[in-house]
Amino acid sequence: MQSADPAVREMLDEARRRGVETVWDRYAAQLPQCGFGELGVCCRNCMQGPCRVSPFDDGPARGVCGATADTMVARNLVRAIAAGTAAHSGHAKHLAHTLKKSVQGKAPDYPVRDEAKLRAVAARQGLEADGVPAAELAARMAEAALANFSEGEEPLAWTTATVTAGRVQAWEKLGVLPVGIDSIISEIMHRTHLGVDADAVNLLLGGVACAVADYTGCHLGTDLADILFGTPQPVVSEANMGVLKADQVNIALHGHNPVLSEVIVQVARQMEDEAKAAGAAGINLVGVCCTGNEVLMRHGIPPATHSISQELPMLTGALDAMVVDYQCVYPSLVGVAECTGTKIITTMGMARITGATHVDFEEENAAAGARQIIRLAIEAFGARRGRPVQIPQYKSQVVAGFSVEAIVAALSKLDAADPLKPVIDNIVAGNIQGVCLFAGCNNVKVPQDENYLVMARELAARDVLLLATGCGAGAYARHGYLTPEAVGEYAGPGLKAVLTAVGEANGLGGPLPLVLHMGSCVDNSRAVDLAVAVANRLGVDTAQLPVVASAPEFKTEKAVAIGTWAVACGLPTHLGLVPPVLGSATVTGLLTGGIKDLLGGYFIVETDPVKAAEKLFAAIQERRRGLNLATRSW
Amino acid sequence: MQSADPAVREMLDEARRRGVETVWDRYAAQLPQCGFGELGVCCRNCMQGPCRVSPFDDGPARGVCGATADTMVARNLVRAIAAGTAAHSGHAKHLAHTLKKSVQGKAPDYPVRDEAKLRAVAARQGLEADGVPAAELAARMAEAALANFSEGEEPLAWTTATVTAGRVQAWEKLGVLPVGIDSIISEIMHRTHLGVDADAVNLLLGGVACAVADYTGCHLGTDLADILFGTPQPVVSEANMGVLKADQVNIALHGHNPVLSEVIVQVARQMEDEAKAAGAAGINLVGVCCTGNEVLMRHGIPPATHSISQELPMLTGALDAMVVDYQCVYPSLVGVAECTGTKIITTMGMARITGATHVDFEEENAAAGARQIIRLAIEAFGARRGRPVQIPQYKSQVVAGFSVEAIVAALSKLDAADPLKPVIDNIVAGNIQGVCLFAGCNNVKVPQDENYLVMARELAARDVLLLATGCGAGAYARHGYLTPEAVGEYAGPGLKAVLTAVGEANGLGGPLPLVLHMGSCVDNSRAVDLAVAVANRLGVDTAQLPVVASAPEFKTEKAVAIGTWAVACGLPTHLGLVPPVLGSATVTGLLTGGIKDLLGGYFIVETDPVKAAEKLFAAIQERRRGLNLATRSW
Repeated sequence: MQSADPAVREMLDEARRRGVETVWDRYAAQLPQCGFGELGVCCRNCMQGPCRVSPFDDGPARGVCGATADTMVARNLVRAIAAGTAAHSGHAKHLAHTLKKSVQGKAPDYPVRDEAKLRAVAARQGLEADGVPAAELAARMAEAALANFSEGEEPLAWTTATVTAGRVQAWEKLGVLPVGIDSIISEIMHRTHLGVDADAVNLLLGGVACAVADYTGCHLGTDLADILFGTPQPVVSEANMGVLKADQVNIALHGHNPVLSEVIVQVARQMEDEAKAAGAAGINLVGVCCTGNEVLMRHGIPPATHSISQELPMLTGALDAMVVDYQCVYPSLVGVAECTGTKIITTMGMARITGATHVDFEEENAAAGARQIIRLAIEAFGARRGRPVQIPQYKSQVVAGFSVEAIVAALSKLDAADPLKPVIDNIVAGNIQGVCLFAGCNNVKVPQDENYLVMARELAARDVLLLATGCGAGAYARHGYLTPEAVGEYAGPGLKAVLTAVGEANGLGGPLPLVLHMGSCVDNSRAVDLAVAVANRLGVDTAQLPVVASAPEFKTEKAVAIGTWAVACGLPTHLGLVPPVLGSATVTGLLTGGIKDLLGGYFIVETDPVKAAEKLFAAIQERRRGLNLATRSW
Repeated sequence: MQSADPAVREMLDEARRRGVETVWDRYAAQLPQCGFGELGVCCRNCMQGPCRVSPFDDGPARGVCGATADTMVARNLVRAIAAGTAAHSGHAKHLAHTLKKSVQGKAPDYPVRDEAKLRAVAARQGLEADGVPAAELAARMAEAALANFSEGEEPLAWTTATVTAGRVQAWEKLGVLPVGIDSIISEIMHRTHLGVDADAVNLLLGGVACAVADYTGCHLGTDLADILFGTPQPVVSEANMGVLKADQVNIALHGHNPVLSEVIVQVARQMEDEAKAAGAAGINLVGVCCTGNEVLMRHGIPPATHSISQELPMLTGALDAMVVDYQCVYPSLVGVAECTGTKIITTMGMARITGATHVDFEEENAAAGARQIIRLAIEAFGARRGRPVQIPQYKSQVVAGFSVEAIVAALSKLDAADPLKPVIDNIVAGNIQGVCLFAGCNNVKVPQDENYLVMARELAARDVLLLATGCGAGAYARHGYLTPEAVGEYAGPGLKAVLTAVGEANGLGGPLPLVLHMGSCVDNSRAVDLAVAVANRLGVDTAQLPVVASAPEFKTEKAVAIGTWAVACGLPTHLGLVPPVLGSATVTGLLTGGIKDLLGGYFIVETDPVKAAEKLFAAIQERRRGLNLATRSW
C-alpha cells in the first residue's frame, strides 16, 4: 500500500494510466538506496572525500582525515539540525520583517490583526506595553523578535520566556542555551567543517543547542503569525481532494509561510467577479502542506492534500494553479504540471524552481502580487474550461484551529478561574493518561498516513489526549480524525468523557475532536506552550510530565530539528523511521538512552506503529509513576 | 609520488616501518570513492534519501523529491560555501570577541598591539577616530566588527569599504551583497532544505552572496588579528621538519586562529627555565597549517609542515605536544600520537577530538591556559627524554611577513610619494606580466606541493609576480621558494629585475623572495587589498586587472568559499582538482563560463599544472589586452 488515503490511491492509478511520474516512482527508481548514506557514515565535508565508513570489518573504518563513524554520523546529524533551524527561523524572520514593514507603513496589506496576542506576547517578553499604542508596541515587537537572530550576550529572550525555569537551568548547565539563532547555525556549520569538532558527544550537544534555537525560531514564527494574522480559533472545514471544485478556479496554496497566502485569501474574495467573467463559478482556494494548515487554522480554507501526495491534486485536471512559497515544495511539481496544465507559481526570490512561473512577491506590494497570481490561475482555468476532470470524491469533515488560546478558552467554560484544572484533575484521576503530540511529515518510505492512524487509534483507546501539527495534522484531517465522531469511534472511556465534557460546556452538543489540530509544523511551539502551562501550574518541569511526542513519518531536516528540541524539552520522542545514525553505536546509544540523563527526553525509534504506541504509552506510565499517579498496563 | 617534500617522504617511510596509519593509507582504503559524491549528484538533504542521479541513462534522473542533477550539485556546492564561510567568520568573530574582552579589561593578555592598524582600519571604516583614545577606538572597532555578523539593513560595512566601487555595483546589481554574515549562512541552509530553492542559477547566486560574506569574514579576521597582534613585517625563519630539535621541548601550534598561539608564544619565553629543569635545552615552538602561518608571519616561528602531512612530525619521535585550535585538524592525530607519545591538546570548546587531552582555553585566563598547555608538553618531554628521535634533516630558509603594509613600505623606498607606481609601471612595461595568488591546501589526491611548485616555476619564468597564502605558502616555504635565491633560479628577467630593484632599495642586497608569503588562508583578503589598491590607483575594477588566483591543491569547504569570492572579485581562478560539480552541465558551464559575463571572474579547472599555468597566463594576457597593454604568447 502506498497510501492509506483513498483519494491518493485513486490519483495514483490515474498517474499510472497517464504515465505521469510521481514521488513513489522516483523512490522505486532510487532503490536500493545507498547504505552508507542511510547509516550516516558518508561524508562529503571536504574535497578529499567522499568518504564512507564500513559498518562491518570489510571496509575503511575511518575517513581520509581520520573521522570515525561516530564523528561522521554526529556531523551529518547536526548539519541537518542546522538546516532545519535555518528553515524555521528563516520563516520566522520573514514574519518579523513583515511586521516591521507593517509598522513602518511600507506594507499596508499587513495590519496587526490580533492586538490581544500582541499585548500578551509583549507582556510575556517583558516589553514595556502599558499605555503604549499598538503600532508602537508592534514596532518594539518586531525589533525584539529580530534581536533573537543576531548574536547577543544573553540567552535568547524567546527561549527563556517560553519554557519552564527547570528547562532553562538544565540547558544552561549543559551549555546548550544559544545566544543567537543565526549564529548557532553558523557555529554548527563551522564545527562540522573538516578538522573542527571530532567528538560525537560534543557535536551532539552543539546540535541540541541549535535545536533549542530551532524551537525559539518556531515560537517566534507562531507568535508573529498570530499577531499579524490572528490567533486561530476553532473552525470547521473539510479536507482531501474532494474539496476541489470542477467549475471553479482552483488554486492550491502550498509551502509554509502565511505571508503570501493570507493576502491571497483576502484578494481572492475581491476577484470572484473576475473569475466569473472567465466562466468560472468562483475561486476555490485549497491548501497543501503547512501553508494549507495556516489558512485552514485561520480561515477554514480546506486542505486538498499534504506532503508526499502534493503532486496528485494536479492529476484531477481541476487544479488551475499551485502557488508556492517555500519548504517541502517538490521540484517535480513542474513536470507534473506540464502534463496537467496547472500553473506552478513560485513567489519567493530565494526559492525558485526551474521551469515554474515566477512572480516575485513583495510585502510592499502584496495585494498587487496576489492579484497577479490569481489572474494567472484564472487564465489557466480558461484554458482547461470544458475539459473533463476527475476529482476523487473523498473529503472529511475537519474541526481545526486549536491554538493554546482556543484550548484554554474552551477549558475555561469548565473552570473560568483555573482553566487548566480540569485537564490536570483528569490526568491525575487517570481519565487522561497523558498527552501525545503528533508532528512531522509523510515519507514515501512508509505507507502514507498509516503510522499516524494506527498510533492515534492505539493511544486514544488508552485515554491518551492527542495533539497534532503539520502534515501529521493533515493526515488526521483527511481521515476524519479531527471530528467529534472519531471520539465515539476510537477514544477510550476516560478520554471520551473529558472531550465530551469540554465540548458540551462549549455548547457543541458533543465532544471536541479526537485529535486537536494545533497548526503548522512551526506551530509545534503551541504544544510546548500548553505543556509549559501545565508544568508551571503543577510546579514541575516539562521533563516530568506524562507528555510524549511522535514523528511517525518524518522526512525533513526541520523534523530532525523539531525532534531534537522535543527531546531537549524533556519529551520521550518517537521516530517512525530510522534516522541516519545507525552507523554509530555511540550516537545511537546517546540519542536513545544516554541523553535521558541529561535532558529527561530521549528518542524512541520504532517502525511498527503498534509497538511504537506501546512504547510511548510505557513512557507515559513511567512519567505518571514519577509523579505518584496511578499507572496502567498496556 | 605522495609528496614532493623529502621530509614527508622520509617520515612516510618511517610510518610504514612502524605500521602507523597516515592520511595516504586512509585515502588508499577509500578507493574507489563514490562516483556520485564525486560528481555532486548525491543528496542527503532529507530522510527520503539518500538519492543520487545517474550521469548516464542507466539510473534515476531525479531524486525522490524531483531534484535534478543541477539542483543537487548546486545545493551541495552552496552548502559547502556556507560551511567555509562559517569557518572563516567564526574565526573572525572569535577575534572580535577577544578584542571586545580586551577593551572591557576582561582579557588582560590581549593588549592592542598595533594602534596604527587600529587607526587605519577605523579610518577606512569611517569610525570617528580623531582624538579618540586607542582603548575607546578599539571598543568601537569591536562593535563595528561584530555588527557584520548580525543581519542589518545595509550591505556589510567591511564588504563595501574594502573592494572597488565597481565591485559593489556589480554585486548590488546581481543581488549578491549580503546584509549579515551569519544570516546569509542561515539563508543558504534554508534554501538548500528540501523543497526550497530548486533552480541551479538562483542557488549559485545565493552561493556567491555567501562567498562575498566569506570574503568579508576573512577581511575582518585579518584586520582584527593585525590590530590585536601586530601587522606582519618581513621576517626570516626556516621551514620543514628539520626545525624540530631533539633536545628541546617541541610544541607544534596547529589550527587557524592566533588567539591561543599568540599567548603561547609569549608564555613559552617565560617558561624556558621550567623546560630546562625538566632536562630540555629549551622550548621549541613550531607551526603547522595556518596557526603556523600566523606565528610565522608575526614571530618567525618556523613551520614544521602543513595540511596533509600534519601527522608526520610526530613520527620523528621528537614532537612532545601538538596544540590545536580549530579547522583542518585531522582527528587521526590522536591515533598517531598514541604510537609516538605526543600529547594532542585540544583547546576550544567547540572543537574537541575524542581521545585528546582537552584544556579549555579562555581569553580571560589566557596566560594560565597557555602555561598549563606548555607544562603538559614539558611533561611529555620528560617521558620521551633519552629515546632516540629521527628528525628529517630538511629545512629551507624562509622570508615571510608580506602584509600589504609591508609590501607598500618596501615599494615606498622606490617611490615614497606613490608607492604603487613602480609596480604599475612594471606591469605596464611588461616586466611584470601580471600577478598570481596561490591559495589553498594540500589534498591527498595529488602529490603534495607538486602543483604549487610546477605552476610557480612556469609562471615566474614568464614574469608573473607570485603571492601565496595558507598551506600554499607553506608549500613554498618548505621548498625554498620564499627566498631571494629562488628568484635567481626561477624568475624571468623582468620579474627578477623588479624584485631585485625593490630588494636593493630596501637594503637587502638582493631581491625579494620569489613568492611573497601574505599569511594564512584568512589572509587572502590581503591579496584583495593589494589588488584593490592597484585597481583604484589605475581607476579600473579588479575584474580588469591582470591578476589571477589559483588553488592547485584545494581541499576544504573554506577553499570553495574563497575560490568563489575570488571569482566574485573578478579574478580568473584556477582549481587544480575537479570540484564535485561535473554531474551538472549547467553548474559546470556557469562556473567556468557564464559567470564571467556576470562577475568578470570565472573558474579554470585544470589538473595538469603546466597546462594550468598556461591557461592562467592566457587569462593574464586577455586582461592585458583589455587594458591595452602589450601581450606575450606562452
